[in-house]
Amino acid sequence: MSQLKPPTAADVDAAASRLSGIAIRTPLINSPVLDAAIGARVFLKAETLQRTGSFKFRGAYNKMSSIAADRRAAGVVAFSSGNHAQGVAAAAQLLGLPATIVMPRDAPAAKRERTAALGAQVVLYDRDREDRMAIAQGIAAERGATLVPPYDDPLIIAGQGTIGREIVEDLAAQGLKPDVVVIGASGGGLAAGISLAVKARLPQVKFYTAEPEGFDDMARSFASGHRETNAKLSGTICDALMSPTPGELTFPITRALIGEGVAASDAEVARAVGFAFRELKLVVEPGGAIGLAALLAGKVPVAGRVVVAVLSGGNVDAALFDRLIAA
Amino acid sequence: MSQLKPPTAADVDAAASRLSGIAIRTPLINSPVLDAAIGARVFLKAETLQRTGSFKFRGAYNKMSSIAADRRAAGVVAFSSGNHAQGVAAAAQLLGLPATIVMPRDAPAAKRERTAALGAQVVLYDRDREDRMAIAQGIAAERGATLVPPYDDPLIIAGQGTIGREIVEDLAAQGLKPDVVVIGASGGGLAAGISLAVKARLPQVKFYTAEPEGFDDMARSFASGHRETNAKLSGTICDALMSPTPGELTFPITRALIGEGVAASDAEVARAVGFAFRELKLVVEPGGAIGLAALLAGKVPVAGRVVVAVLSGGNVDAALFDRLIAA
Repeated sequence: MSQLKPPTAADVDAAASRLSGIAIRTPLINSPVLDAAIGARVFLKAETLQRTGSFKFRGAYNKMSSIAADRRAAGVVAFSSGNHAQGVAAAAQLLGLPATIVMPRDAPAAKRERTAALGAQVVLYDRDREDRMAIAQGIAAERGATLVPPYDDPLIIAGQGTIGREIVEDLAAQGLKPDVVVIGASGGGLAAGISLAVKARLPQVKFYTAEPEGFDDMARSFASGHRETNAKLSGTICDALMSPTPGELTFPITRALIGEGVAASDAEVARAVGFAFRELKLVVEPGGAIGLAALLAGKVPVAGRVVVAVLSGGNVDAALFDRLIAA
Repeated sequence: MSQLKPPTAADVDAAASRLSGIAIRTPLINSPVLDAAIGARVFLKAETLQRTGSFKFRGAYNKMSSIAADRRAAGVVAFSSGNHAQGVAAAAQLLGLPATIVMPRDAPAAKRERTAALGAQVVLYDRDREDRMAIAQGIAAERGATLVPPYDDPLIIAGQGTIGREIVEDLAAQGLKPDVVVIGASGGGLAAGISLAVKARLPQVKFYTAEPEGFDDMARSFASGHRETNAKLSGTICDALMSPTPGELTFPITRALIGEGVAASDAEVARAVGFAFRELKLVVEPGGAIGLAALLAGKVPVAGRVVVAVLSGGNVDAALFDRLIAA
């Protein structure tokens, strides 16, 4: 399949040019309290501060700005539990394309509402009984719309990879290099893109994926060497990290460049969300805090190293956030 | 009083050297959603991400690192509703000085606990019946400790002024200059320091102080030309902004360089805290959101301009934050 040609570091550079002045160059945040808690020099790439509150805008915009002129009027369609939905909707709004988003009925209200507020048509489905891919493909076929996949696409991966470029550049400006990078993984687009971009510049960097316990398909796939599937389709507070299996395109990249993953429990994720509230003054959604959770729980060997974790999103309902920070 | 010699822009530069590598160079955060909500190009100086979660560390460290060697062992004493307390405690810990902090009994629990956790001795007083200044001066006299005032001190003002330097430098790196800067005011140390630093580089910038309704002593003092006093000593959600009157040292500076102030209601502040949670993914305490509140409420004429507001702190109890973001 020509669509599944793997992206290269040059594709990430091209994405960076397309996103320049459009995506926010998010800060790398450091904190003495965080360093002390983890026993390392820690930097958090705050994609919570990205347009739409998650990294997903980068890949979506990179993909959609590459749609041929004669296909633009038919618009785009995407399926997403929430953050990709908002990323696609925001990119569509900027590019003047109609967007239809297929979202699970149990996605956080904040994510559904914000997607609609960005001008997209939202179509709900039942996560346990319906096939979102089939629904989205049906809409795409009927309207001639372009499907914007959440991760298994070279332009999506390259877009997320711009985060890796910024990490390397912004640490270099402080005279530093990352030793370890921890990246949350669901379908693996973020992990594939960042590892691709960073390894092209700094081949020595050690990566880990971080996943919710019970949804650690990426880590188990690294161990077995082929794409494993999660037993459950729901049942973690990390609503953004419930993809059933690593992507066909992302897995060969993450397997070659990352190869090792850790998992964090809901309780560990809740502690990380609370820590980010109290100590860092950042709003991080559960799935966005998975890397920080793994670091705070001591699951990644980082003592004394320069460590980067990606805070991948901050779209959390007030009611859930209340419960997490009260714990 | 020689102690009240006004600070100069050179004092701010000296403070920047002392704070380099010690205070966090906090990011200037921008957001298309924020720009659209306000109708201007808005940058938020996120001092919420500073050590101890507020700007107060800057002034405290600048002051305390200047204490003569033979006076260090006797330590420091300060009075504060919370953020200055933490700033002094953190600076004392870094400099190896014993610290005693006089705090009101009704200060947020988070601020009291964090001050104690930083190794300071906390002495509580009753905000309505006791004189915190007298208590602190008594402790200082008894122990030979150095009093670290919250705002009326040239080294404190110069320390806070380093924020102004960073605003100018970081906007210049993006090819921009601020047109308008909005600064929360209580005693006026932050407002005096920032206006001093910015005006020395860019004399055309227009400043506004922002205060809670009913606690707008700075704005009323600008109008009358002399230091007015608030009628109330409590009764705003902005616990950080309840100083009764502008400082003796800060007022001549803010009057000359700022001269105009706006006020925001508790409801407007709550909306700003909720906006920062939902749209910006930042935890901002009520007092820290006063400038953003004034901008969102349309109280400052900024249409189409480059505007900076300082998010001065993020130390808010989970219970109050829950109520504010649920609104």
